[in-house]
Amino acid sequence: MKRRPLLHGLSIMLAVSTMSPPTGGHAGTKATTQPADMVDPRIGTGGPGHTFPGASVPFGMVQPSPDTAMPEFHHAYDWAGGYQYNDPTIMGFSQTHFSGAGHSDLGDWLLMPVSGDVRMEPGDPAKPESGYRSRFSHAGEEEHPGYYAVTLDDYGIRAELTAGPRVAWHRYTFPADQPAHVLLDLRPSIYDYPGKVLWTRLRVRADGTITGCRTTRGWAPGRTTCFAMRFSRPMSAHMLYNHETGLTYHGFRGPGNAPMDPNVQTGRAVEAVFDFGRLSAPLVVKVAMSPISETNAIANLDSGGQGWDFDARRTDATNAWNRALSVIDVSGTAEQRTQFYTALYHAMLAPTLSMDANGDYRGPDQEVHRARGFSFYSTWSTWDVYRAQQPLMALLRPDMSAQFVRSLVAAQQASPVGVLPIWSYLGLETWCMTGYHAVPIIADAYLAGVRGFDANAALDAMVASATSPVYGDLTDYMKLGYVPIDHEAEAGSKTLEYAYDDWSLARMARAMGRTGIAETFEKRARNWRNEWDPQTGFMRARLSTGEFHTPFDPGAAAYGSDYTEGNAWQYLWYVPQDVPGLIATVGGGAKFTAKLDELFDTKVDPARFRNVEDISGLIGWYAHGNEPSHHIAYLYDYAGAPWKTQQRLQQIMDSQYSARPDGLAGNDDLGQTSAWYLFTALGFYPVAPGSNEYTIGRPFVPKAVLHLPNGRTFTMVASGLDAAHPYVASVTLNGRPQDLVHLRHEDILKGGELRFVMQADPKH
Amino acid sequence: MKRRPLLHGLSIMLAVSTMSPPTGGHAGTKATTQPADMVDPRIGTGGPGHTFPGASVPFGMVQPSPDTAMPEFHHAYDWAGGYQYNDPTIMGFSQTHFSGAGHSDLGDWLLMPVSGDVRMEPGDPAKPESGYRSRFSHAGEEEHPGYYAVTLDDYGIRAELTAGPRVAWHRYTFPADQPAHVLLDLRPSIYDYPGKVLWTRLRVRADGTITGCRTTRGWAPGRTTCFAMRFSRPMSAHMLYNHETGLTYHGFRGPGNAPMDPNVQTGRAVEAVFDFGRLSAPLVVKVAMSPISETNAIANLDSGGQGWDFDARRTDATNAWNRALSVIDVSGTAEQRTQFYTALYHAMLAPTLSMDANGDYRGPDQEVHRARGFSFYSTWSTWDVYRAQQPLMALLRPDMSAQFVRSLVAAQQASPVGVLPIWSYLGLETWCMTGYHAVPIIADAYLAGVRGFDANAALDAMVASATSPVYGDLTDYMKLGYVPIDHEAEAGSKTLEYAYDDWSLARMARAMGRTGIAETFEKRARNWRNEWDPQTGFMRARLSTGEFHTPFDPGAAAYGSDYTEGNAWQYLWYVPQDVPGLIATVGGGAKFTAKLDELFDTKVDPARFRNVEDISGLIGWYAHGNEPSHHIAYLYDYAGAPWKTQQRLQQIMDSQYSARPDGLAGNDDLGQTSAWYLFTALGFYPVAPGSNEYTIGRPFVPKAVLHLPNGRTFTMVASGLDAAHPYVASVTLNGRPQDLVHLRHEDILKGGELRFVMQADPKH
Repeated sequence: MKRRPLLHGLSIMLAVSTMSPPTGGHAGTKATTQPADMVDPRIGTGGPGHTFPGASVPFGMVQPSPDTAMPEFHHAYDWAGGYQYNDPTIMGFSQTHFSGAGHSDLGDWLLMPVSGDVRMEPGDPAKPESGYRSRFSHAGEEEHPGYYAVTLDDYGIRAELTAGPRVAWHRYTFPADQPAHVLLDLRPSIYDYPGKVLWTRLRVRADGTITGCRTTRGWAPGRTTCFAMRFSRPMSAHMLYNHETGLTYHGFRGPGNAPMDPNVQTGRAVEAVFDFGRLSAPLVVKVAMSPISETNAIANLDSGGQGWDFDARRTDATNAWNRALSVIDVSGTAEQRTQFYTALYHAMLAPTLSMDANGDYRGPDQEVHRARGFSFYSTWSTWDVYRAQQPLMALLRPDMSAQFVRSLVAAQQASPVGVLPIWSYLGLETWCMTGYHAVPIIADAYLAGVRGFDANAALDAMVASATSPVYGDLTDYMKLGYVPIDHEAEAGSKTLEYAYDDWSLARMARAMGRTGIAETFEKRARNWRNEWDPQTGFMRARLSTGEFHTPFDPGAAAYGSDYTEGNAWQYLWYVPQDVPGLIATVGGGAKFTAKLDELFDTKVDPARFRNVEDISGLIGWYAHGNEPSHHIAYLYDYAGAPWKTQQRLQQIMDSQYSARPDGLAGNDDLGQTSAWYLFTALGFYPVAPGSNEYTIGRPFVPKAVLHLPNGRTFTMVASGLDAAHPYVASVTLNGRPQDLVHLRHEDILKGGELRFVMQADPKH
Repeated sequence: MKRRPLLHGLSIMLAVSTMSPPTGGHAGTKATTQPADMVDPRIGTGGPGHTFPGASVPFGMVQPSPDTAMPEFHHAYDWAGGYQYNDPTIMGFSQTHFSGAGHSDLGDWLLMPVSGDVRMEPGDPAKPESGYRSRFSHAGEEEHPGYYAVTLDDYGIRAELTAGPRVAWHRYTFPADQPAHVLLDLRPSIYDYPGKVLWTRLRVRADGTITGCRTTRGWAPGRTTCFAMRFSRPMSAHMLYNHETGLTYHGFRGPGNAPMDPNVQTGRAVEAVFDFGRLSAPLVVKVAMSPISETNAIANLDSGGQGWDFDARRTDATNAWNRALSVIDVSGTAEQRTQFYTALYHAMLAPTLSMDANGDYRGPDQEVHRARGFSFYSTWSTWDVYRAQQPLMALLRPDMSAQFVRSLVAAQQASPVGVLPIWSYLGLETWCMTGYHAVPIIADAYLAGVRGFDANAALDAMVASATSPVYGDLTDYMKLGYVPIDHEAEAGSKTLEYAYDDWSLARMARAMGRTGIAETFEKRARNWRNEWDPQTGFMRARLSTGEFHTPFDPGAAAYGSDYTEGNAWQYLWYVPQDVPGLIATVGGGAKFTAKLDELFDTKVDPARFRNVEDISGLIGWYAHGNEPSHHIAYLYDYAGAPWKTQQRLQQIMDSQYSARPDGLAGNDDLGQTSAWYLFTALGFYPVAPGSNEYTIGRPFVPKAVLHLPNGRTFTMVASGLDAAHPYVASVTLNGRPQDLVHLRHEDILKGGELRFVMQADPKH
């Protein structure tokens, strides 16, 4: 068993200081390793990162991964990814996981291989022998993109996972002297709670294929998801259970008074045990998903799950990741490259394929639709990923970006209320979080040159979202120019978010020549000004009367307060579409810079935010663990203090990221926190997606080559970068001097070299 | 408001005695009325008949009808059809009903028109003002095939119902001075119980179409059924509710913190109120069903529900019934014709269309299938309807019979366990009742000359059912030649039923030249002999050791006893495939006749059967209210005592049928009890479906002309029939003397005249 050591205990600066040579060439491990080899899926699996260590292909439908705690710790924020690094036991391997979500669900089709006697309940993590869960150690784990393995110590079983686009593959090596079993427990899920499972059906077919569907009332209520599963060896026996007790009505269970058919089970607490006797060779299990039906799940299995060659499928998954990750060749220390490629890996897990092999997908109307000419993707954490993860895809993967836009528009067209996805998965809407941030996702893609979708239909969908009366506050917003706090919670931040979304919509409409729409939304884009309170110097929520909401405490934060998962300190800066205007409003560059410094430097007791679990990663009032802060460090640039941006980025990189399991200071949020890392490491960041402009920071890797989909390469070189030279002396683009603030998207697309020359002192 | 008087208080014999002329011609009302005018849908709506008074077209998908008691009297046998004639209030009009079932479900999409203030709960029938239910009187009701109307006294609303194949039509005339509302309550259903509704979704679309789906865990667990509804006038407002309380997890209800979208509701206790203000003209409501999806329900509505002309749709429904009922022209008194055409009406309500306009249907695997070249029908009470209702369709409606057979075979092909339907509806299996009686349905149709299906595929499906290990007892049966009672409840009757089913299968296989199968099942058809106990003179259950089960009481009956809904007295006679063999076994004709007399003449306390609600309609031990007795009166024929058959039929007709609401002595069972009436009134009955032979009884109508689908007519004339001449003197077929026992199916198909000459005294 090959183990890759976990890199830890080294700060970025130390790592950079040991680089040799520090610039201009391939770093030590480059020649001998593929990018996937550098990824460490453990990063983010401890603490608030909420990533999962299991297997997936890029944007794949299935994510088989170990679950450590469910269902005992139901509805638990810390287990949103199913796994917490410090947990002592594994309960099983479910097939679906979100990467880094701040609210959660999934954990479907939990499989657990068991040797010897079978216990039917998951058991207490504190007493693993009380259930089917098993102890494990990190020494017994191995994690790579598309591959996960662990030894289940209580059973002596080696469990390995890999994945295709729609099929999860498991390989279980049982001790040869014990009866081998596989449990399928359809009761638990992530964010479990009593009554969550509405209905399950399970069926063992004559050919040994096991199929079923489960309907749950979790985050996306009434979600039905189906599966089809096959084993590489025939079962010697199987038992299907429904553990429900106290049923008022049983109906009839089988023909006549015969016992229940042993091949079918239904109910709300269904579990199955599959027996294999003693096995001298590994058992391979493949599980295909479908958001539609058992029939489609079988077709998905047939089309993507031929044969039993687990190693070949693992190689496929590894190759898929190497192809995906090789869009950037990054140089640096092993730790730098691990952090970078792990971030890129995390940025390419979602949105996920949510369409069957025949093109069927489920829409937000719960109905079945057929995709024609595109692939339908879901898992949309739009409040997060519009900021950097989707702009990164528009830059590096316009092919995927086009599919994403088509999926968003298809979802809007099937929406019962005619709006673009907000937080949706498997096609269904959760209504979680604020804003119509699918609008900037589409606008940014269009303005970045992504094509392959009907731009007029997309713009129509964007306008429909941005004017929908189902946003209870939009009606007021369109009338008053702000969301009134007496009509709508979190009105302060909603006004700011809408204004930015509106600006992005206007940008796309303007580029398309749809002038009327452009004008309407350009006007709306200025609504942030309605929140400005010169008295206190903050953006504040107003009542419908026009008065500011009182009392006012700029440090106060609570769910349902004046701001969404934040306070006035964190939202003051949310005018990415007009930073110069914001600076002028605040009172000019010096005052703006001083206020930014106050943001970062104020001593804040983290206990202030104990009621808002999403606010984490504090530097003063700045909270890198949550998205509203993500662009703020770059704002010094606009106030004439780029060296302060560079300084703050260093501070954030040092304190908020590491190559450890707890190396993400906040939820990865479907790749947004990782995408921040990637852009920042490259030296620039999309402060205002849709602007076609990146804001220059400072690089954290010595060199990175972007292999652009147009065939060109764009190379970032950080000349002289080391711990002693963290500041930017100059930037040149293809040899021409570049200012320290702006980098145009089209200049990247042209290819060439962006060269940073680093220096020891801040450049004033 | 035109009212048709209810015929009651006149016995059949009195009615016959007032006929003029009693034979040979059309009776008084014939020339001026259509058959549908003679139908009284009230028959069977009181007592144990379990029919519904509402609207349906022949074999239609929807059956809008008033519901009087649900959900207060949950899981209540007496309300299996939703309505009990003696109830004082109507709770609403749901769209789906079984006709005469002995177990139940449905009652989907309950609508209630309300004027004035709205109460959200159905309320207590004893205090109708406590809820939305309304008092009504029978004077305010009008019932015809395809049409039902009632005045809701508490609201002053006239409610009318009609139906198309997939669309239920309602017309509500509100008092003009009160606000008009329509309630849609998605909580109740027939055979309700706490927790039955698993999930509901409801949506008001921009064009005013209301759609939704509901999943319940009733008789067919996990049944999802959808609907689409439109109103002829725009709503002034609507409110959608979910009345669930104490939810552990709410998730998010609308975009951001906005209130729940007013156009969508989900949950387990959903209800909607639609407001229309004051209406000066009637409101028309049309509701289409789909077993698949909202999309399909809308398509069903579009394809079958154009316009708002309620009266035109009522005319369509009336015409459909007149066409369907005119397969037989029957003469007689008004009461005779009412009873006859009502029975024919009840015999043509099921199986029901269970396929969307696009051909989609749900199979017993819960998956969506597409019918190609046929229409999929479900609602299969096979244990009942194989006896006479399906043979009647094979005779009169081979076109429908062919669709039924194709539907049965399609269901078998989609069955998770590979068996033909047992008791299934909307494609789903309930596993209710015993035997594989779809086998004799298909065999009888094939042998009766019904074509238009793949006979080999059908035979394969029949063999698959008749050998399926999912019948826990079939394995033993195939090994031992009987079902052992120590392995399987109700083994005594199961052995007898299987043996008959086997015989019918063998008959079809023999006719097709599939000799191997024929021989196997011909052997199995003789298994009834393994039950015979010469010691007691009854058919008895044996243990697997071969010993008879003791203690033995031939009068004992209980669910799960040695017999299915019956006792040894009732099951002794269940050898329809070999009555001569049974007579010889019992000890010859005299002994057999004496035992039959004992069956009918023993004084039996009905309280003996209070634990078996299906056993009703007692004459001695004979129980006409349940199907196992249905063929018994005809068995005297075979023992050389046809006059005793004639006598017993008179006794049954007099005591078990009337033209009153309580005019059915047992469950109509999807038309089986009515089909018995029809055949018996015509003078012959299919004692052994699949034999191509009817057993002659005595006619109860003076004349009937069967319009055969081959273009010929077959006329039954009962010459001299009156109360004083109840016995058959002679039978001639096209003038040739016929014995008093046998009538061949092919002789009917040739057309011609079957003439009974009646006499005063029994013919010895």
